[in-house]
Amino acid sequence: MSSSLLLSPHDLRFLLYEWLDVEALTQRPRYAEHSREIFDAVLDLAQQVATDHFAPHNKYSDAHEPTFDGQRVHQPPQVKAALEVFAETGLLAGGMDESVGGMQLPHMVASACAAWFKAANIATAAYPFLTVGNANLLLANGSPEQIDTWVRPMVEGRFFGTMCLSEPQAGSSLADITTRAEPQEDGTYRLFGNKMWISAGDHELSENIVHLVLAKIPGGPPGVKGISLFIVPKILVNDDGSLGQRNDVVLAGLNHKMGYRGTTNTLLNFGEGSHCPDGRPGAVGYLVGAPHQGLSYMFHMMNSARVEVGAGAMALGYTGYLKSLAYAKERPQGRPVGDKNPRSPQVPIIQHADVKRMLLAQKSYVEGALALVLYCGRLLDEQKSAESEDERAQARLLLDVLTPIVKSWPSQWCLEANNLAIQVHGGYGYTREYDVEQHYRDNRLNPIHEGTYGIQGLDLLGRKVTMRDGAGLALLAERIGTTVEQARKAGDEPAELGERLQAAIDRVVTVTTQVWGYGDTEAALANASVYLEAVGHVVVAWIWLEQLLAAHGKEGDFYDGKRQAARFFFRHELPRTGPQLDLLASLDRTTLDMAESWF
Amino acid sequence: MSSSLLLSPHDLRFLLYEWLDVEALTQRPRYAEHSREIFDAVLDLAQQVATDHFAPHNKYSDAHEPTFDGQRVHQPPQVKAALEVFAETGLLAGGMDESVGGMQLPHMVASACAAWFKAANIATAAYPFLTVGNANLLLANGSPEQIDTWVRPMVEGRFFGTMCLSEPQAGSSLADITTRAEPQEDGTYRLFGNKMWISAGDHELSENIVHLVLAKIPGGPPGVKGISLFIVPKILVNDDGSLGQRNDVVLAGLNHKMGYRGTTNTLLNFGEGSHCPDGRPGAVGYLVGAPHQGLSYMFHMMNSARVEVGAGAMALGYTGYLKSLAYAKERPQGRPVGDKNPRSPQVPIIQHADVKRMLLAQKSYVEGALALVLYCGRLLDEQKSAESEDERAQARLLLDVLTPIVKSWPSQWCLEANNLAIQVHGGYGYTREYDVEQHYRDNRLNPIHEGTYGIQGLDLLGRKVTMRDGAGLALLAERIGTTVEQARKAGDEPAELGERLQAAIDRVVTVTTQVWGYGDTEAALANASVYLEAVGHVVVAWIWLEQLLAAHGKEGDFYDGKRQAARFFFRHELPRTGPQLDLLASLDRTTLDMAESWF
Repeated sequence: MSSSLLLSPHDLRFLLYEWLDVEALTQRPRYAEHSREIFDAVLDLAQQVATDHFAPHNKYSDAHEPTFDGQRVHQPPQVKAALEVFAETGLLAGGMDESVGGMQLPHMVASACAAWFKAANIATAAYPFLTVGNANLLLANGSPEQIDTWVRPMVEGRFFGTMCLSEPQAGSSLADITTRAEPQEDGTYRLFGNKMWISAGDHELSENIVHLVLAKIPGGPPGVKGISLFIVPKILVNDDGSLGQRNDVVLAGLNHKMGYRGTTNTLLNFGEGSHCPDGRPGAVGYLVGAPHQGLSYMFHMMNSARVEVGAGAMALGYTGYLKSLAYAKERPQGRPVGDKNPRSPQVPIIQHADVKRMLLAQKSYVEGALALVLYCGRLLDEQKSAESEDERAQARLLLDVLTPIVKSWPSQWCLEANNLAIQVHGGYGYTREYDVEQHYRDNRLNPIHEGTYGIQGLDLLGRKVTMRDGAGLALLAERIGTTVEQARKAGDEPAELGERLQAAIDRVVTVTTQVWGYGDTEAALANASVYLEAVGHVVVAWIWLEQLLAAHGKEGDFYDGKRQAARFFFRHELPRTGPQLDLLASLDRTTLDMAESWF
Repeated sequence: MSSSLLLSPHDLRFLLYEWLDVEALTQRPRYAEHSREIFDAVLDLAQQVATDHFAPHNKYSDAHEPTFDGQRVHQPPQVKAALEVFAETGLLAGGMDESVGGMQLPHMVASACAAWFKAANIATAAYPFLTVGNANLLLANGSPEQIDTWVRPMVEGRFFGTMCLSEPQAGSSLADITTRAEPQEDGTYRLFGNKMWISAGDHELSENIVHLVLAKIPGGPPGVKGISLFIVPKILVNDDGSLGQRNDVVLAGLNHKMGYRGTTNTLLNFGEGSHCPDGRPGAVGYLVGAPHQGLSYMFHMMNSARVEVGAGAMALGYTGYLKSLAYAKERPQGRPVGDKNPRSPQVPIIQHADVKRMLLAQKSYVEGALALVLYCGRLLDEQKSAESEDERAQARLLLDVLTPIVKSWPSQWCLEANNLAIQVHGGYGYTREYDVEQHYRDNRLNPIHEGTYGIQGLDLLGRKVTMRDGAGLALLAERIGTTVEQARKAGDEPAELGERLQAAIDRVVTVTTQVWGYGDTEAALANASVYLEAVGHVVVAWIWLEQLLAAHGKEGDFYDGKRQAARFFFRHELPRTGPQLDLLASLDRTTLDMAESWF
């Protein structure tokens, strides 16, 4: 696998250095030890390890998915071997503080590094990146002792982590979980229940697995207000850090997925009596933070996980784009329009307008998504390092608004990119001899997990743009307005596209007010998914205008390509939002009015 | 598998009897032997056989795809068993003339019967339906002797057929095929070459396989004008009809596909010397019709095959819709908007607006596609049985225009329906424990085979709407105008939707003229795929208005559902065409202007 088929190093560096100016962060105390040379070195390291150790078994572990013999999970040995190399790089803790053994890299850089692994092998990469989320939650909410016991081995790559939210009867509806945690005299808890859809829930890739589990302490408030968070390890750890007894967390079964096959996805039973630590029933759990506050802790992790889902969708879209581009340059087929001479040689299919359309659409989706993901990384960096509390709070607010979009937009449009990558390949793209069909299957998970597309729509329209009297949407509009102002100053094409973007965001603001102005919550939220799609396109148009400005006045193929992709997005994509916003403005009730018996 | 999860018998009967009035055909000589009772009986038979013999092994043969041991192809025995039951029904020749052993059913009815098998198991159904296309081509262009030798055993279910067009170096570009056919003294030919992507190209499901092969006779004209058509059987047939020597057609390998796995897809070698009939090299072939006319014969078959592809896409979309509907009615999750009480019971997810949206969108796609497919069947019936030559010619012309649409529209939107069916299922939909992920994988083939989406766009914009001074588009607009006139007379909602449809088709006509008015063929065709998508949506809006009129004034859940789906299509779907037609009217050159080096 050539690394040139995973991501574009040129594009990454353009975004990081020419657009987001990550180097400027090295002026801030948190990142003062860093430099462009260090950033380049870790990016190169990520590219090399991803290319040499993750990409080669991507297809193999898809074709040889994990199996469970009733006792143990079996996976191809390449998975564990790759993760061992990954652990040695220290990249798992790339974004974490030096105080816990991390590199304290800017999130932008850590995110760009992570993208290489996701593009190379999303299923193998899931194990460490789930672990990062787990560790970050404990760093934010765990006790010093918990951090010492559980996070340190994660940073070293010895323990992996999971998040256990869903249950068979409660997928998206966490209020309805029934796993219970019974307090013990020694301050620990014993957990009983079943968790569904737990990624990396069992395997033999690490010495131990640290589950973060949502459960209810009996007697607590009903619904989401009674949810607490627990550390429940697969294997208990002794006081000296060595592994102790087996805890009563048992794999009940593996789910067999369409894609993403290399990541085990599990149904776990807690406290069903297969193992009884110290002879007593229940899986041993340790409360994180205060009782009944579990959901807010988990949402801290969940929000990061949502950005990660978008990043994964982007990475799959990106590699599929590059592979279809390489194919289109090599595959001769047909002749230009107007050349009817069958004796003239066939041309590479990239010369056909419709193939260019499919490539340019992919480019606009995947480069737009990468830029959006890195922009969200920048907002995390601002939260951690901006000088004033006001700047930090603004970054937090803007990321809050963008989270459902950065989760959903790549999940939709980079999946569409994979769809187009197959189409560019023709029949070959439909076969497992080529890579793109796997990317398409892998990517189909992303609109589902960590909150479905519909839930993200409700989050955006029902919460994010309304909270604090619409301060989040106002901030987004303000930031877009700033970009438009820069575009005006640049004149010419940026100015023209800027006017179109201004009109689009103005319309979003107006329609948002209209939708809520009717005073009918049910109707307002009925088309929340359409709202999410429309606002996502406006946001990505903004991100494209930002890229256009970063390329402005620069010469060369790369910059010409950025300009043309920006044009494509404004001409072919942004106009889609018109009818969507019209529909929303009309407070359309077509779906609400559909009676169940009419189906 | 309950048959209620494959297709809706109610919908089929509504379309056939209440809308298309298939009973009226029994007044015509060709169908005079038939009656509604007969139609109902064959529809019931198809439903029963599809449900009992095709659906049960759909998942199994996906998980156990065909294997090739170098000598023989192995498939699960259920496939052959199902095809034997199918042969007994006589449905393979349902639409064929009684003179060749067919039932001489209206195409509408034969198509509705076929839909059951496609919904139940598209991969197993492919074998007989490819055979039907093969047989129809020979009935139209073969000699009486050829028909006797090859078609009769196909009608009896003993021989299956293929179509061999593509080659490894020539997928969509048939001008570049290199398979050659050398004339022999006895009037037969010997073929040499390789054919790629041949569905059902090898198997042990039938006694023999009849390949229809495009090849070039040395010395003929270059390009497509030098292509001839040959019958090349896997096994030669003796004068008495018994099987003779093995012909030199050899399976070089199976393609391993993302979906549609139960249908073998093959690379075939002709005349490579594995078998040499009568000790001489080459695969024995028999010329069909005149030399160098092969492509026109093949396109006769190809046009039917394109309708069939659309029908298959529809069937997969339809069954996915019904399965997600059943799931949504049964799966409790969450509470209505505004009910924050966690002690209230969870509701079935069908009560959530966004789930209704996903179901209603599916309904509008799959019922729209089924209606379009049956309408095309009606046009075939008109071609065969209309009283005047003028009516027959009009039906032929309209079907010519609609062929790229009926091929492509379901391939795009019923695939999207499958996407939504997965989404309705949430995580379960992503697992192979449920059916919908397979439908999605199976359906992804349909935008590729029998002419890719891009090629259909070129066919529609570059040929079908321009041929004969735009007579085809004018006829389409006239038929739509007739429906709009009926809607005006019906008043109220039909009239209102009719005005919107009239505006849409007027815009299509105007934009078509504009696109060609610039005198720039390359630019005119650059966005042909966008044109195909826009015109497809306008056509399906018309088909929905037709259904609305057929339901007009009728009471009951079924008719209410039709009305609501029509509303959905006009409110949520038809407006998509606005920006698409704007783009076309601007003769957008964004893709054309993208240089290869800019990617």
